[in-house]
Amino acid sequence: MNTNRIFNFSAGPSMLPLPVLEKAAAELLNYNGSGMSVMEMSHRSKYFEEIINSAEALFRKVLNIPDNYRVLFLQGGASTQFAMVPLNLLSSAEGTADYIVSGNFAKKAYEEAQKFSPNIRLAASTKAENFVRVPNQDELQLSAEADYVHMCFNNTIFGTKFPYIPETGNVPLVADMSSCILSEPVDVSRFGLIYAGAQKNVAPAGVTIVIVRDDLLKEPLPGTPTMLTYKTHAENDSMYNTPPCYPIYICKLVLEWIESIGGLEALAERNRQKAAKLYDYLDNSQLFKPVAQKESRSIMNVTFRTDDPELDAKFAKESAAAGLSNLKGHRSVGGMRASIYNAMPEEGVEALLKFMAEFEKNN
Amino acid sequence: MNTNRIFNFSAGPSMLPLPVLEKAAAELLNYNGSGMSVMEMSHRSKYFEEIINSAEALFRKVLNIPDNYRVLFLQGGASTQFAMVPLNLLSSAEGTADYIVSGNFAKKAYEEAQKFSPNIRLAASTKAENFVRVPNQDELQLSAEADYVHMCFNNTIFGTKFPYIPETGNVPLVADMSSCILSEPVDVSRFGLIYAGAQKNVAPAGVTIVIVRDDLLKEPLPGTPTMLTYKTHAENDSMYNTPPCYPIYICKLVLEWIESIGGLEALAERNRQKAAKLYDYLDNSQLFKPVAQKESRSIMNVTFRTDDPELDAKFAKESAAAGLSNLKGHRSVGGMRASIYNAMPEEGVEALLKFMAEFEKNN
Repeated sequence: MNTNRIFNFSAGPSMLPLPVLEKAAAELLNYNGSGMSVMEMSHRSKYFEEIINSAEALFRKVLNIPDNYRVLFLQGGASTQFAMVPLNLLSSAEGTADYIVSGNFAKKAYEEAQKFSPNIRLAASTKAENFVRVPNQDELQLSAEADYVHMCFNNTIFGTKFPYIPETGNVPLVADMSSCILSEPVDVSRFGLIYAGAQKNVAPAGVTIVIVRDDLLKEPLPGTPTMLTYKTHAENDSMYNTPPCYPIYICKLVLEWIESIGGLEALAERNRQKAAKLYDYLDNSQLFKPVAQKESRSIMNVTFRTDDPELDAKFAKESAAAGLSNLKGHRSVGGMRASIYNAMPEEGVEALLKFMAEFEKNN
Repeated sequence: MNTNRIFNFSAGPSMLPLPVLEKAAAELLNYNGSGMSVMEMSHRSKYFEEIINSAEALFRKVLNIPDNYRVLFLQGGASTQFAMVPLNLLSSAEGTADYIVSGNFAKKAYEEAQKFSPNIRLAASTKAENFVRVPNQDELQLSAEADYVHMCFNNTIFGTKFPYIPETGNVPLVADMSSCILSEPVDVSRFGLIYAGAQKNVAPAGVTIVIVRDDLLKEPLPGTPTMLTYKTHAENDSMYNTPPCYPIYICKLVLEWIESIGGLEALAERNRQKAAKLYDYLDNSQLFKPVAQKESRSIMNVTFRTDDPELDAKFAKESAAAGLSNLKGHRSVGGMRASIYNAMPEEGVEALLKFMAEFEKNN
C-alpha cells in the first residue's frame, strides 16, 4: 500500500506503528465479526470487555507488572494526574510530598500539588541550568515523612531522562512516564505509582495509563471528585463510567505489535540504537550540538541546536519540506528536537541523519 | 462494501453514521495528504487546528449557538461534569444549587454536587414513580438565590425527556444533554451551560462537549484542579493540554454528515418519525407496553416491556440473534430499550418493528 506516509518526529501525539494503523483501518467498520466498529460498541459488551481485558493483560505481561499493582485506563492526560496524585496519596490536607523538578511538566505537577496542601516540598530542581540535566541522587533532599516523592522520568521538552531510579526508602515513588513508558523495561516494583498519557508510545491521545500499587488505593482527601479517585476506578475495573474505548483498543493493538517484534527487550535495543546513532552524529558534528548533558540523555527525545537561531529555523523548515516533520524544538529550549518513539522506524532516523549531513555540508 | 453490519440499539456507545466510518477508514493512514493519521498528528499542527476549529464552527452552525457561548471539547464524560459544574458555578463552598432529579444520572449529579457545598437542594424528584416521567414545571421548587439549576434533559435509562425547558428566571439552567444533543434543534439561549458525553450522537467515547455562556467562565472554588476549570479550557481553546484528537475528528465528520442530510431540522423530523413508529406500535400492542409516560417520552430511547420478565429475556436473546443488538433494558427498569440515536437508520426501526410483530404473534 503506497500511502505516502512521512517520518513524523512530533513530541506527541506521535507516530503509531504502521501495522497497527493498517489493522485498525481494516476492521474499522466491522470488528471481529461483531457487525460494528469498536467506536460503536457498548463498553459493557463482551467484545469490548475482551478488548480492555486483553489490553490490561498485555500491559502486565509486556511491562512485567507485579500482581500487587492495578492497571487503570483513565482520561484527562498527565495534567489530570498532577491533581489526582496529591488528592489520592496525601495523607491529609496538610500532608507532605517531595517533588523533583527536572523540567516543565515536573514543575507543573509541583505547582498543581500546592493547591491541595501547603506542605509540598521542592526536593531538587535543575531549572537554573534550564533543565539540561536531571538531578543526581545525592542532590535529592528527601523527607522520610513524605507521603510520596514525585518525579518525571523522561523530560520531553529538554530531551533528558533519569539514568537511575531514585532511592526513596519506604516513601512511595510516583513517576510521570508519559514520554518513555514502554520504551524499555522498567522495574515497576521500585515505584508506588506510574502514570502516562498515551499519546507517545501507547495509543492516540485520550487515554491515560495508571499503574498503582494496591496499598495506595485509599480514601482520597475530602472533596475529591469521584472521577478523580483511583479507588473508584480500580473497584470498577476502569469502567466506573464509559471509558475512552477506541484509544484503549489501539493500545491493545500497540501492545500486540510490541509482542510481535520481540517484546520490550528487543524494542529497547532498537530504541537505544536509534538514539545512539543520533547522539554519535551530534557528538562529532561541527555544526550541531546536543542540548542535554551526556549522562541525562533521553532515548526518546533528542534535542540539538546550531549556534544560530536563524539556521535552526532554516533546518526546521527545510527538513519538513523533505518529509521529516515536527523537528522544531520547544520554544523554551529552541533549536531542534527529534522525538523517536517506539513507532519511529530506523529508516526515519537514517533519513534524518542523511538530511543533517547534507545540511551541515551546505551551511 | 458488504460489511455485514448489524442494527445496534445500544444506549451508548452507539451507532455512528456509516458514511462517517467509511471516511474515517479511508483516511486512517493518511489524512488529507498530511502523510499521517489523525491519531498521530501533533495537536498544535495546522492539520489538527483546522479539524478542531471546523468541529467548533460546525457545532455552532448546526446547533445555532449564540456568540456569547463557548464550545469546549473536554475529557472525562458527563461523570466529570457532575463535579465541574458545582466546582465552577457555585459562588462559594456554601453556595446553593437546585437539582431536578429525573433519573439515575440526574441523581448522580445531585449526589456529586453535595461534595462541594452543604446547600445543594432537591428541586423535584420522580424517583417514587421509578422515573417513568419527568417533573412538571409547577412541581419544581426553585430558589431565586440559587447559583444554578441542574437538570438531565433526556433520561437514557428510563426513556424519558423533558417536553419543556424549565423556566428558571435569572438563575442559569445547566443541562446534561448526553443522550439527546444534536437530536433536534434546541434554544441554547435558554441555558447557562449544556454538557454532553459524545458517545451517543456526537462521536466515539472520550470527548465531552461543553457549551457555556461567557459570564459563567469565572474563578472556580478554591482547590479546584486546573483540569476541572472551565475558564482554563476556554482561555486555551480546549488546548490547555493534549485534547482527545481522534474523537474530535470523528465529531467533525458527524457534524458534516448532519449538514449533508439537511441539518438539525431534517434530522429531528427523521428522529420523531422513527420514535413515533415505535410508540404507535407499543400503544396498540397486546403484548408490549411502553414504560415512559406519554408526555415524557424520549425520541432517543424507547423503553418497553411485556408483563413477563422471562418473556423479556427471551425477546432480548432472540432479537440479538436476529441482528438487532443491545435491546435488553437497563437492570433498574428491566424490560427492553431501543436506543434510536441519529445514526440508527429507519431500516433499523422497521426491522425492529417487524421482529416485534413476529414475536408478538408467536408468544
